[in-house]
Amino acid sequence: MTAAILCIGTELTRGELVNTNSAWLAEALTMRGFEVTALDSTDDDRERIKSVLRRLGAEHELVVCTGGLGPTTDDLTTESVAELLDVPLERDEGSFEAIRERLERYGRKMAASNAKQADFPRGARVLPNKQGTAPGFCLEIGRALAFFLPGVPREMKAMFESELVPRLPRSDALIQQVLLKTFGLPESAVNDQLAGVEAEHGVTLGYRAHFPEIEVKVIARDDSAERALCRAQRAADAVRERLGNDVVYGEGDVTLAEAVGRLLVERKLMLGLAESCTGGLLAELLTDRSGASAYFAGAIVSYSNELKERLLGVPEALLREHGAVSSPVARAMAEGARSALGADVALSVTGVAGPTGGTPEKPVGLVHYAVATPEGTVDRHLNFPGTRQNIRLRSAFAALGLLRRVLLHGLD
Amino acid sequence: MTAAILCIGTELTRGELVNTNSAWLAEALTMRGFEVTALDSTDDDRERIKSVLRRLGAEHELVVCTGGLGPTTDDLTTESVAELLDVPLERDEGSFEAIRERLERYGRKMAASNAKQADFPRGARVLPNKQGTAPGFCLEIGRALAFFLPGVPREMKAMFESELVPRLPRSDALIQQVLLKTFGLPESAVNDQLAGVEAEHGVTLGYRAHFPEIEVKVIARDDSAERALCRAQRAADAVRERLGNDVVYGEGDVTLAEAVGRLLVERKLMLGLAESCTGGLLAELLTDRSGASAYFAGAIVSYSNELKERLLGVPEALLREHGAVSSPVARAMAEGARSALGADVALSVTGVAGPTGGTPEKPVGLVHYAVATPEGTVDRHLNFPGTRQNIRLRSAFAALGLLRRVLLHGLD
Repeated sequence: MTAAILCIGTELTRGELVNTNSAWLAEALTMRGFEVTALDSTDDDRERIKSVLRRLGAEHELVVCTGGLGPTTDDLTTESVAELLDVPLERDEGSFEAIRERLERYGRKMAASNAKQADFPRGARVLPNKQGTAPGFCLEIGRALAFFLPGVPREMKAMFESELVPRLPRSDALIQQVLLKTFGLPESAVNDQLAGVEAEHGVTLGYRAHFPEIEVKVIARDDSAERALCRAQRAADAVRERLGNDVVYGEGDVTLAEAVGRLLVERKLMLGLAESCTGGLLAELLTDRSGASAYFAGAIVSYSNELKERLLGVPEALLREHGAVSSPVARAMAEGARSALGADVALSVTGVAGPTGGTPEKPVGLVHYAVATPEGTVDRHLNFPGTRQNIRLRSAFAALGLLRRVLLHGLD
Repeated sequence: MTAAILCIGTELTRGELVNTNSAWLAEALTMRGFEVTALDSTDDDRERIKSVLRRLGAEHELVVCTGGLGPTTDDLTTESVAELLDVPLERDEGSFEAIRERLERYGRKMAASNAKQADFPRGARVLPNKQGTAPGFCLEIGRALAFFLPGVPREMKAMFESELVPRLPRSDALIQQVLLKTFGLPESAVNDQLAGVEAEHGVTLGYRAHFPEIEVKVIARDDSAERALCRAQRAADAVRERLGNDVVYGEGDVTLAEAVGRLLVERKLMLGLAESCTGGLLAELLTDRSGASAYFAGAIVSYSNELKERLLGVPEALLREHGAVSSPVARAMAEGARSALGADVALSVTGVAGPTGGTPEKPVGLVHYAVATPEGTVDRHLNFPGTRQNIRLRSAFAALGLLRRVLLHGLD
C-alpha cells in the first residue's frame, strides 16, 4: 500500500518554515508498513490544492494532509476538498460547541472566522482536536482514504495517534525498529563494518548522521510485531558486536552525555568540568537531561588565562612556557577542577575554536582535553576541521568519549 | 513564473531526514521573484522520478531538483532523466578528471561507482561541484528549465549561488528583505503591534518563531533592487519604531548573546556568569560566536548548594532561609560571580528546570535571575511553562534580556 503526505501552506512554499511534519508523518507511516512515495507541499491556492489532491487520490491508498484548517481567509483546505468532491459544506454542531467552549475558556468570543472551522464537506467524518480549535476530518478521494489534520505539529501529532492510527487500513507487514547511538567512527567506517548484517539477519539498516554522532536504525519487518521485534533485537546485537561498546554507547533516546552520566552514577562518582574553548557547552550537554545533579557537581568556564590561574590553580609558569592550549595545561585544568569543585573526577578542554586565533604551531581546531581521577590523569589532543561551532561540538564529544573510556576501562 | 522544487531520496520518504533543502531553495527562489507552488519529494524509484519530472516540467517554468546524484546503485536521478528524455548517457571527461583528482587528494582510487558520476544525459550542461564529487547539470524538461543539484546541503547551496543563479530566467520584480531579530513579545503581540505596516509601506511582513525569539522579515518588491531595498529599510524603521529597541535587538544574522556582547564591548565591560539551572547554556550562548573573549571573562556553573557557597560565597544562612531558587540567592550569586571572576558585571540564573524537583511554593519553571554591576544589583523572576529544555532556553534568554536592558537603561 502506498501513501502520500501533502502539506498545505504558503509559508512552506515561500520557505519561511522548515517542514518537519512531513518527515514525522513519513516515519510514522513507514513504521506502520506503508510505502510512502510522495511528500508534497503546495501553497494556499484553491485550484492547486484541488489538483494535487485529485492526483494523490488517484495514485495512493492513503493520503495524509496537514495545514490550511485555520480560521483565516487564506485557509482554504476544507473548501477546496468540498469543491473537488462537488459536495456542500455542512456545519457540525458538536465541533461548533467545542470551539465556542475552548475560546470562552481563554476569555474570547466566537467570531465568524472561528465558526468556519466547524464546517466540513458533506459525508466527512469529523476528527476532534483536543489541543486546538481546528478539528480534522477524513473521507475518500479517488481510491485513497484521505485524512486532513491541522498544521501545528503538536496538534497534528496528537490527532495522528488518537484519530488516524485506529482508522488506518491494516498493513500485513509489521515493522519494529531498534535505534543504536554511536560515536567515534565516521559514517563510512560504520557502514563498512556492518556490511552483510542486513542479509544475514533479514533487516534493513538506516544510518542517520546527527553530527558528530551516527545513529544506526535496525528495521525488521515480519508478520507479527513480536517476531519483528525479536529479529530487530538479534540484528542489533550483531551491530553491537561488530562495532563494539566503545562505539555503541546506547540505545533509543539516550545522549552520549547521559550515557556517561549513568556510568558516573553506577560508580558513585561526582564530575567536575574545566572548560575553555567549549565555553560551557560541555556543562550544557551534561545538564540537558534531568537527573544531572546525581553526577554533576559543577563547572568552571575559564575563558581567560587569569581565571585558569585564579580558579583552577594552573601555574602561571605552565601557561607561559606551554601556552593555554597544551597538554600540561589541559592536565592542570582537570586536576584543578577536581580540587576546586570537590569532584571525584574532572574533565577539561582547552583549544583553538577559531575562526581566528590560530598559529602555525597551534592551528584553529587543535584541542587538548584531559580526565583527572584519584588514580591519575590522562590527556589527549586532536585537530578538528570545520566551523567554530563544529569544532566546539566535536571537542565536547571527544572529551566525553575519553571520559567514557576511562570509566569503562580505567586509565591504562 | 512558477517554480517547483523536487527532492529525491528514500531517506526523505521514509522520514529518516528532515528536508531542509526545500525551505532553503523555496526562500531563495521566492526572493528572486519566482512563485514557488510545489515542493515535492519522492523516493529513489526510476518510474516515480520520471513521472514527477514529466509533470513538473509540464506545469512550471523552473524546476530545481536535489539528490540522487551519488555514486551508489540507489542513486538514480541522472539515469531517470536520460530515460525520460530518451537520450543516452555520455561521459564528460572534464568531470571525470575532476572526480579522479579529488579522490586522489584524499588518497582514494577511482571506482566504477565514482565514474558513473561523470555521466550525463546527452545535451545537458554540466555544472561543476567544487565541494564534492557529484557534479550537477541542467537541461530542458517540457517547458521548464530544470536544474539537478546534489542533496548535501553545503554542496547544493554553493552550486545554487555559483551555477544556478547566473542562469536563472530574469524576473522583472526585484525583491529585497531586511531581517529584524526580536525578543520579549509573543508572536501574536508582535503581529498586532505591526498591523497596518504592510499597507502603509507596500511591503510584506513574514514572521518566523525561532524559539524563544520572533524574527520579523520585511520583504519589498520593486522594479529595481535599489528601490526595493530602500522601501524595505523604510518599513524596517517603522517596525523598529513600533516595537521599540528593547524588543528589536538587532538586524540580520546577529544573536541576542552577540548583541549583548557588542554592548559590553562598547562600554568596555567584562562579563561573568553564575549559572545553576541553565547549567552552562548561558556561557555556551555567549561564546558561540567568535570574539567572545573581548567581553566574556568566564562562568561558574554551581549545580550544588555547596559550590554556591564555596565558589560564589553565597552565605549558607541565605540558602537555608530562602532556598537556592530565590531572589536573595540569585543576587548573591551574581555579586559573588562578579568578585570571583574579577568581572565588571555579572549575570546569575537559578531556577527549577524540572521535570522533577518542583514544590507548591517553587514549581517547575520558576526562575530567578540577577545582574550585578558596580552601581548595584537588580533581579527578576518568571514562571516559565514547557519542557526542561524550553525552560532552560527561556531562562537564558530572559537573563540576557535583563542584562541588555540594564546596559541600555541602567538599573531601576
